[in-house]
Amino acid sequence: MNRRSFLRTSALGGTAAATGLAAPAYAQGKRTLTLVTTWGRGLAGVHDSAQRVADSITAMTDGELTVDLKAAGELVGAFEVFDAVTAGQADMYHGADYYFVGQHPGYAFFTAVPFGMTAQELVNWYYHDGGHELHDELGQIFGLKSFLAGNTGAQAGGWFRNEIKGPEDFNGLKFRMPGLGGKALGKLGASVQNLPGAEVYQSLSSGAIDGTEWIGPWADEKAGFQEITKIYYTAGFHEPGAGLSLAMNREVFDSLSPAHQKIVEIASGESHQWNLSQFLTNNGAALQRLQSGGVKIMEFPDSVWDAFGKASQEVHDENMGDELYKKIYDSAMASMRSSSGWLVKSEGVYRAQRDRVLG
Amino acid sequence: MNRRSFLRTSALGGTAAATGLAAPAYAQGKRTLTLVTTWGRGLAGVHDSAQRVADSITAMTDGELTVDLKAAGELVGAFEVFDAVTAGQADMYHGADYYFVGQHPGYAFFTAVPFGMTAQELVNWYYHDGGHELHDELGQIFGLKSFLAGNTGAQAGGWFRNEIKGPEDFNGLKFRMPGLGGKALGKLGASVQNLPGAEVYQSLSSGAIDGTEWIGPWADEKAGFQEITKIYYTAGFHEPGAGLSLAMNREVFDSLSPAHQKIVEIASGESHQWNLSQFLTNNGAALQRLQSGGVKIMEFPDSVWDAFGKASQEVHDENMGDELYKKIYDSAMASMRSSSGWLVKSEGVYRAQRDRVLG
Repeated sequence: MNRRSFLRTSALGGTAAATGLAAPAYAQGKRTLTLVTTWGRGLAGVHDSAQRVADSITAMTDGELTVDLKAAGELVGAFEVFDAVTAGQADMYHGADYYFVGQHPGYAFFTAVPFGMTAQELVNWYYHDGGHELHDELGQIFGLKSFLAGNTGAQAGGWFRNEIKGPEDFNGLKFRMPGLGGKALGKLGASVQNLPGAEVYQSLSSGAIDGTEWIGPWADEKAGFQEITKIYYTAGFHEPGAGLSLAMNREVFDSLSPAHQKIVEIASGESHQWNLSQFLTNNGAALQRLQSGGVKIMEFPDSVWDAFGKASQEVHDENMGDELYKKIYDSAMASMRSSSGWLVKSEGVYRAQRDRVLG
Repeated sequence: MNRRSFLRTSALGGTAAATGLAAPAYAQGKRTLTLVTTWGRGLAGVHDSAQRVADSITAMTDGELTVDLKAAGELVGAFEVFDAVTAGQADMYHGADYYFVGQHPGYAFFTAVPFGMTAQELVNWYYHDGGHELHDELGQIFGLKSFLAGNTGAQAGGWFRNEIKGPEDFNGLKFRMPGLGGKALGKLGASVQNLPGAEVYQSLSSGAIDGTEWIGPWADEKAGFQEITKIYYTAGFHEPGAGLSLAMNREVFDSLSPAHQKIVEIASGESHQWNLSQFLTNNGAALQRLQSGGVKIMEFPDSVWDAFGKASQEVHDENMGDELYKKIYDSAMASMRSSSGWLVKSEGVYRAQRDRVLG
C-alpha cells in the first residue's frame, strides 16, 4: 500500500468517526498501520519493545488502529525503515535512531552518544528539558513524528580475548562497535568493524575480530559470547542508555484523531519504561548466571576511560559544524549536567551507602 | 454518586458501545470517573502526576471516560481516599500507598521502604519481577485494582538546624518524617513528628521541630526551608524512590471495556516515567539555585548510615509476622539485589568515570 491509497482509506475512517455512523461503518473505518522495525523477529528486548507499542495501540483503540508489525527483512531491510516511512511505504518504524546518522548526525542523541546520557538522564531531557522538541525539529526535516519508545539501559563494554591494561591495547585491535562509539575507538587505533548481529558470534569465534560489544548480559548470554571468552567488561563508554524510537510518517500522524495521536504518544512512552526495566531485570539475573559460569567481570582502568573521553570529544567536535547537531549537543549536555548533579548527590550516595551497609 | 448508581450508568454505556448505536447514544454513554487524591490542588509534582493520568485517560478515550480530579479536601480528605474508593464513594485514587499501612503494612513497598529500592529498581520489580502481581494481591483484599503511576525519585535526607556528626545526634531530636522511615528514626531516639505539609514550615521556623525531610530540592525550595536553615542533607535512607499509585475500585475497573482497562494501565505507567523525570529535572535545577543561595550540601557520615541500616531492619523485622508483608519483602529485596548488581557494574561505573573525566 502506498501513502496515497493509505490516506484515502484513513480519510474515510475519519469521516465515519466524525459523523457517528453506526457500527458497520466503524468496522469499515478500521485502519491497519504498518510498523517496520530494525529488529529481527523475536530479538530479545528490542523486538519486544516494538511489539509492546504495537499491542498497546491496537488494544487501546479496540482495533480501530490495528498495528501490523513487520520485523527487519519482512517488508524492508533493517536500515531501510527510515526511508520507507519518510516515503510513505510504511506508516511507522521502531528502531535505534543512531542507525540514521547518515540522514542527520543529530539522530545519534536519541539513541546514545559516547560519554552521553544514561537512560534516566535521557528521559529527563526528553520530557522536561527540550529533548522531545529537538526530536521533533529533526522530524520536521524528514516528515516524521518521533517518540522515545524503548531503552536497553547502559550497554556493556564488551567481550575481549585479552585484558585491557591501557589505551595502547586498543591499537590494532579488531573490535566490533557501531556508531559514534566506534568512531571514537578508531581514534585509539582500533580497527573498528560494524558487523550485523548475525555475523558477530562467528567472527569472534574464528578470530576474525578480537572482541565485540553487543548489548548487555541478557542479550550477550543469548548470543553465546561466554562460550568463546570469559573476559567481560560490564561498563562501556559508547552507549550509556540506548533509547529506541517510534517514528510515524507525519502525514499519517496528522490524519489521526487527537485521541489516537495521544494513544500513540502514551503507548510509546510507556514502552520506554517497560522495556528499560525489562532489560535491567533480565541483565541482573543473566549477570549472576554468567559469573557462576566463570565469566570474569572487569573494569577498564582510569587511563582507558581518559582516552575514551578524549576520543569521544573529538568525535563530537567533528560534527559541531552542523548547527542543529551543536544545538542538540548543547541542550543534551546542559540537561545531563543539571539532572546528574542531583542524582549523584541523592540516589548515588544512597545506593553506595545501602550497598555498603547491606554488604 | 454512590457506587450502585455509578454502575447503573456504566452498564448503559457498555451496552451502547457493544451494540454500536449512533452518536447521540454514545454521548449518553459517556462516563465520568471521580479521581480523589492525597494531594493539595496544584502541589508541585505529585498533583501534576495525578493530573497527567486524568488528562491522558480523558484524551485517549476521547472523553468516553472523563476523569474528574478532586484534590485532597474537595470530596474527601487526603487520608480518606483509600476508604472512599473501596466503598465506591469515588472511582479511583491517586496517592502514596504508604499512607495506607494501617490498612495493610505491605502497602509501604509500593511507595518506599527504608533501605529499599530506588525508583528504577522499583520499576524493574514492578513490571518484570513480581511487584505488580503482589500489588494486585493486596488489592484483592480491599477491592482495588492498582497501578504504579508516579514517582518523586530519591527523597532528600532533609533540613537540620545543626550538623549531624554521629547517630547520637538524633537522640532527642524533634524531626518530621512519616512512615516506616520515621519509625526507624525513633529507634535512634528521635522524637518523630508526622505533621501535615501545611504545618511543616511554621513548625521548623518556630523551633517546634529541629528538622524535617520533605521531598527534594524542587519541592523543598517551594516550601521555603532554605529561609530557615542552610544545612541540607541530599541523600536519605527513608524513601529512596517514592512511588505513587493509581487505585481503581475493582468493580468499576471490571466494568470497563478491555480497551479502556488497557488505557488506564498504560496511562498510569506512562505517568510514572513522566513524573519521575519531572522531579529529577526540576531537582537538578533547584539544587543549583539552592547552592547558589548559600545552602550547604551535606552527607551523613558512615556511622549514621550504619545506624539507619540497623534501625530499618528492626522496623522490617517487626512486620515479618504478617505473611503477606514477608512475601512482599522477600520478593522486593531479591529483585533489588539482582537488578542492582547489574546497575552498579554498568551504569554506576560509567557515571562515576564520566563525571571524573568530564570534571
